[in-house]
Amino acid sequence: MRIVGIDIGGTYIKAGLVINPPEVQTFRSVNTKTNILVEQLVKIVLELKGEAVGIGIAGLVTNGIVYSSPNLPSIKELKLQKILQGKLKISVSVANDADMVALGEWKYGAGKETHNLLILTLGTGVGGGIIINDKLYTGKGFAGEVGHLTVDPNGALCGCGNHGCLETFVGSEYLSEKAHQGIKRNIKTTLSKYSKVTPETISKEAYKGDTFAKSIIESAGHYLGIGIASLCAVLDPEKVILGGGISKVGEMLFKEIKKEVNKRLYSRKNIEILPAALGDHAGIVGSAFFVSSLM
Amino acid sequence: MRIVGIDIGGTYIKAGLVINPPEVQTFRSVNTKTNILVEQLVKIVLELKGEAVGIGIAGLVTNGIVYSSPNLPSIKELKLQKILQGKLKISVSVANDADMVALGEWKYGAGKETHNLLILTLGTGVGGGIIINDKLYTGKGFAGEVGHLTVDPNGALCGCGNHGCLETFVGSEYLSEKAHQGIKRNIKTTLSKYSKVTPETISKEAYKGDTFAKSIIESAGHYLGIGIASLCAVLDPEKVILGGGISKVGEMLFKEIKKEVNKRLYSRKNIEILPAALGDHAGIVGSAFFVSSLM
Repeated sequence: MRIVGIDIGGTYIKAGLVINPPEVQTFRSVNTKTNILVEQLVKIVLELKGEAVGIGIAGLVTNGIVYSSPNLPSIKELKLQKILQGKLKISVSVANDADMVALGEWKYGAGKETHNLLILTLGTGVGGGIIINDKLYTGKGFAGEVGHLTVDPNGALCGCGNHGCLETFVGSEYLSEKAHQGIKRNIKTTLSKYSKVTPETISKEAYKGDTFAKSIIESAGHYLGIGIASLCAVLDPEKVILGGGISKVGEMLFKEIKKEVNKRLYSRKNIEILPAALGDHAGIVGSAFFVSSLM
Repeated sequence: MRIVGIDIGGTYIKAGLVINPPEVQTFRSVNTKTNILVEQLVKIVLELKGEAVGIGIAGLVTNGIVYSSPNLPSIKELKLQKILQGKLKISVSVANDADMVALGEWKYGAGKETHNLLILTLGTGVGGGIIINDKLYTGKGFAGEVGHLTVDPNGALCGCGNHGCLETFVGSEYLSEKAHQGIKRNIKTTLSKYSKVTPETISKEAYKGDTFAKSIIESAGHYLGIGIASLCAVLDPEKVILGGGISKVGEMLFKEIKKEVNKRLYSRKNIEILPAALGDHAGIVGSAFFVSSLM
C-alpha cells in the first residue's frame, strides 16, 4: 500500500512514501505556508499517489484536530483530519509530531523491542512522545508535553505562559539568544565571527574548543538532565531517546545529560539515553505507521 | 474469599479483611518492628484467616522484592513476597504502597470509572501511583516516584541524594521543621504553644487564622502545584487524586494547588484535583484488589 508520511514543521513540510519502512521514498520538502496548508498537503498526497496519509504536526493535537501550534500561530482548532478526509477520500491521521517520532523510533529505530519508551525532540521547542505497553500514550489527549515541565519555578517566561519550562533552557532560539547576548557583552568567543549564531555554529565552535560555546552546550545538557531525571522518576522507561536538531550536538551534550541524570535519579542508575536512529525521517515513518495501525 | 490487605508504614502496619470492598473488616493496626516484620505479617494473616494477602510498602519495590524503604532503612533487597509465600502457602503480592493506594482509589474511590489517573500520597514522603489504560503503570519497576520530581534544582538535599525534590517542600517532617524554625526565630505564631508541631497542628492553627501557619500550608500548596502541573503536562490524566495525611488539610491546601496548576499548565485548564475517598483504607483495599487481580 502506498502510505504517505508527512511531518509539518514551522518552516518545512517534509513528506515521503513509506512502503518499506523505515525507508522513505520520493522524499519531498516544501516551505510551510499556513494560509494554503490544506492545499499543500493535498498536492503532496496526490503527487505521491498516496492511498493513506499519516501526518504529524507540532502543538496540541487530539482526535485529528489541531488546537494550537506554536510554530504556526494562525492555526486554531483546525479540523485537519476531517478536512483532508473529505478532500482525499482516503484514510488520514493527524497527530502530534513528537508522538509520531516516538512511534517511528519505537517501531523501527533506537527504541525497537522496548515496551516503555520516552522520546524527546529537541528543536525550536522541546516535544515528547511516550510509549507505554507497546502503545503510544496520549492521556486525555495532550500527554507528553515534556517541554513544559517546570525545571526552575522562577525561570524565564515560556511561550505557554508558564515560567521556567524545560523548553526555555534548551530550545534552539534560547541557545542562539544566549550566544548573542554573550557576544554583546564582549565575552571572548569565536562565535563572534558569525552574524547569526545557530545551535549548529555553537556546536561547531564548542567542539573546536571555544569555552563560551561549550558552556552553552553544557548548560543545555544540565537542564535536560534535570528534566530527564524527573521524567524517569515518574515514567521509569526502558530507554530515553533524543531526537531533533539539538540532539545532533552529540557526545558533548549527551555526556552532560547523563552526568546530571545519574546525579539526580536514585531509582535507576545508568539508564540508557540514546540518539534517535531515524534522523529527520522519524516523523514521516512514524506518521505512516500510525495511520496504517488505525486502518 | 478471605483476602487480607496490609499497608506497611514506618510507624504502623495497618491491615484488614477485604471481602466486600471497599469495606474493611476486622481492621488491625500494630507498631511496625522491622526486626520481626515477617513474623508480624504472618501473625496478622493467620489471625484473619487470610486465603490470600496483598501488601503495600513504601519504597522501591518490584517483583515482590523490597529494594529499599526510606522509613524502614534496615530493609535492603528483602524478597518479602517469596518469603511469605513460603511460610503461608497462599497467594501473596508485595508492591509499592502508593501504587496500591492508586489501585484502591481507581477501583473503588475517587477515581472510579477513569482510565488514566494520577495519585499522590502526601505523608512523611510523597508517593505516587499511575493508572494508564485501566492498569497500574510501573514502568521498568519503579515508575511513579513523583516525590522525587525536581521542583527546584538548587533546593535542599533530599534523602534520595537529589536536590530540590518535591518531597523536600511538602513532606510532613519538612513542614514541621519549617514551623519549628519559625518559632525559633520568634515569628509571631500561635504554633509556639506546642512543644512538637505536626502538620495537624499547623493545619488547625492555619484555619484559626494564624498567618505563619497559613504561609506554611500555602507554600506546600504552591510547590505541589508546580509539581502537579509538570506531571499533568507529561501524563495528562483524567483526574488527580491526593491522599495521605497532609491532604487532610483540605480546602486551604487544595485551593493553593489548583491556583498554581491553572497558572502553569497550558494544555488543560481546570483539571480535576480531588481528595482521596477511601482515606486510610485505600492502601489496604488496593492491596487486596491487586493480589486478587493476579490470581
